Parts: sequence; C-alpha cells; structure tokens
Amino acid sequence: MIVSGKNVVKETLNSNTKITKALICKDFSDKKLVYELQKRNICIEYVTKNEIDKIAKENNQGIILYIPDYEYCKLDELLVNDKPFIVILDHIEDPHNFGAIIRTCEAAGVDGIIIPKDRSVSVNSTVMKTSAGALNNVKICMVTNINRTIDYLKENGIWVVGADMDDSVSCFEADFNIPIALVIGSEGFGISKLVREKCDYVVNIPMKGKVNSLNASVAAGILIYKIFEKRN
Amino acid sequence: MIVSGKNVVKETLNSNTKITKALICKDFSDKKLVYELQKRNICIEYVTKNEIDKIAKENNQGIILYIPDYEYCKLDELLVNDKPFIVILDHIEDPHNFGAIIRTCEAAGVDGIIIPKDRSVSVNSTVMKTSAGALNNVKICMVTNINRTIDYLKENGIWVVGADMDDSVSCFEADFNIPIALVIGSEGFGISKLVREKCDYVVNIPMKGKVNSLNASVAAGILIYKIFEKRN
Repeated sequence: MIVSGKNVVKETLNSNTKITKALICKDFSDKKLVYELQKRNICIEYVTKNEIDKIAKENNQGIILYIPDYEYCKLDELLVNDKPFIVILDHIEDPHNFGAIIRTCEAAGVDGIIIPKDRSVSVNSTVMKTSAGALNNVKICMVTNINRTIDYLKENGIWVVGADMDDSVSCFEADFNIPIALVIGSEGFGISKLVREKCDYVVNIPMKGKVNSLNASVAAGILIYKIFEKRN
Repeated sequence: MIVSGKNVVKETLNSNTKITKALICKDFSDKKLVYELQKRNICIEYVTKNEIDKIAKENNQGIILYIPDYEYCKLDELLVNDKPFIVILDHIEDPHNFGAIIRTCEAAGVDGIIIPKDRSVSVNSTVMKTSAGALNNVKICMVTNINRTIDYLKENGIWVVGADMDDSVSCFEADFNIPIALVIGSEGFGISKLVREKCDYVVNIPMKGKVNSLNASVAAGILIYKIFEKRN
C-alpha cells in the first residue's frame, strides 16, 4: 500500500509502521523530512513530478511511502473489555466518510470497527490519509458476513443497536451504558433489512428540518459521541 | 452558477430555484428528467460528453443546470427568533465540510450560518451538491469582518460560544439554552486568536484517544447536536 503527503508521511514515521521504500519528487523542498527518512535507512528513490503523480493521484505533495498492506484484527480482539463499544459499518462506500469515522472512533475510545468484506470501503491510502493518523490507534476487523458476526456478538453479551429513522427511539433518550455494537448504515440506503431485524433496538437522531439528511460520518459522529457521553 | 448530477438537478427542480438553461449529454438516458425540464419550458442544449466534462469537472452524470448565483441573506435576517441559534464558520476552507455542516444545520433547525468573505469557502456548486438540497432551507450570511459581526451579535443579546480544546469547558456540561452563536474554527488552525478572545465562553469535545483530531464537519455536528438537544 502507498501513503502520500507530508503530514501522513510524518505520522507514519511517528508510528511504528514498517516503511519499504520512499519516492520523492526531485524538487521536494522539505529537507528535514528527507533527513528523517535517511536517518532510518529507508531506501529513497528520486522521481519526476509526472512519475509521482501517476502513482498517487491525490495531492501527494511530492512524497510517497510504500508500507505493508493494512493488517485487520480478529473479531475476538474487539471483545477484551468488560463493556465493549464496537462500531459496525454496514456497507459504507466513501473512503472520506470511513476516514472521518475512524477519527471519531479514536477520539471517543471505541474498541474497534467492523466492516464487511464485500460492497464496502476497505482500508486504502485515501482512508489512511483522511483518518489523519487515527488509524494506528483503532482496531479494524473485516468480516465475511455481518449477520453472522452480529449473532456472535449477541452470544457474547453485546447489545446491537442500529441507527435508522423509522420506528426507532431518540438517541437522546436511549440507554447506552451497556456492552454495545452500534450499526451505521450505508450513505444511500441506511442499514440493510436483515441487519435491522437482528438489532436489539434502533435509535434515531431527532431532526426538525425539511430535508433532514445528515452526512454519514456526521451522523456516525453524533451517535458515537452520544454513546460516549452516556457511558462516561 | 452551475449545478450538476441527477440528484442535485431533481432537488433544484423541486425547490423554487430559477433555472436559466440545461446542458444535457447526447446519450443521457433519464428521459423522465428530460421531460420534467421540457414541461417547465427550460432551454435545453444537447452537448457531447467531452463538452459537459469540461464545464463540470466533478461527476456530472451527463446533466448540468445553470442557475443564478447564490443569494446570501442579511445578518438581521438571522435574528428573527426570540432565542436564535447561529453557527459562525471561522474560515472553513473545504467545500465538502461546508456542505456537510449546512446539512447538519438544516436538520438541527439552526437559524443561519455566518461565513467571512475572505479566506473561506463560499457557496459554490460543490457546496450545493454536498449539501444535498439542505442549502435551500438554511440562511447563509457572508460578512466582511467576523470580529465586528460578533460585536453586533453580542449587542443583540447573543452569547458567542467558541469551540476549542484548550482552557475550555466540556460541551457535555455547558449551558446552551440561551440565544447562541457557535463559532467553529478552520480545519487546520481552529478559531482565530481575536475571535477566541471575543467569545463569552469556549467549549470542547471531550476525547480519550491519542491522536484526538476530529474532522471539522463531524466536530461541528457533535456540537450543533449537543446544543440542539439542550435547547429542546
């Protein structure tokens, strides 16, 4: 996997991530950052702006690192606390939303995030960049089947709480001081029918507008922080 | 100003926005949408995919509308309620964050948003698209000088509350059941020093991670909803 941009490179250097190689643009001006790479004996290749732009399409600021692919954790690693707080992303597709949700989970001390293998964003370089370093402090578990995962969580005493507008209780009123897995639905379609049926209860974010559509990462942020507040 | 993409076009048609002209790709397949435009006697020009992509760089889905530039409201229009709830964006730069914040403000019944004229995102087609139709139901006021605006709001009995991490009270504890203007800082630098000094009080979002950096629109969402909850 590649990561790019000065801030992400600095954060990667500060974390214990293994770095295989660095590509740097010939006119790259941040000498201090280059010195940091040299000090750690990281192999540096100097390339043209054209070459670097071909490899990292997003604003790379003239620097790219090659790092090993992200290592997902095992489901049981999310169940180490007495009163776990897990977030399940039911087919989120936008890497910027995923990155923003990872940041929120890190700040709110969430034990881990569960994502499905298919029809979902996975941890890629955009997610790593948007997560602004938070990715290194949040466990992420990728599962083949969300429904079976929910069954397993319930067998382990976790309450599964879905986020949806219809037939649900206000998140301001609901009880969250329990072992909890919060399910956030996809950007366009919300949580899937089967997942919703498995939820112990469903909560909504009260709204008083006409359009009443929140961005997925904002909706996740409001709910995660409501749970955080009620548990602390 | 132009807006593009099928959803935004549908929302624009549903709102009372004046439409000057439509550009449609020659192989555009949504006949129902074309019929809607024809029914309203909107001038339609058929163009090639290349031509349309040159005008709207973001994913336009083969359809563009020309609409008059966004009309900002006057400051006094935000002060019509007994207990106003205003959001001031102190130099937010990312149009996606601005769009997401507009959606949150609409859902939480915020009376209006204030943005500065310089070094700030303004209402453009990306903001219109990201705001997913909410823009039509939220008043936005553009001011030359945020500091003078804050003075004026305070003279009118509004409490100005800044969002910042240092020397501040938890947003879980603060009193928000007052006429309020919440100041959200820029993505990289938070609220500016002068604005902070003018705030009646400053609140933070409690965090327990290591990185502790929230996306600007997520942070705004958490605070706006905390205020919404305490006022309802």
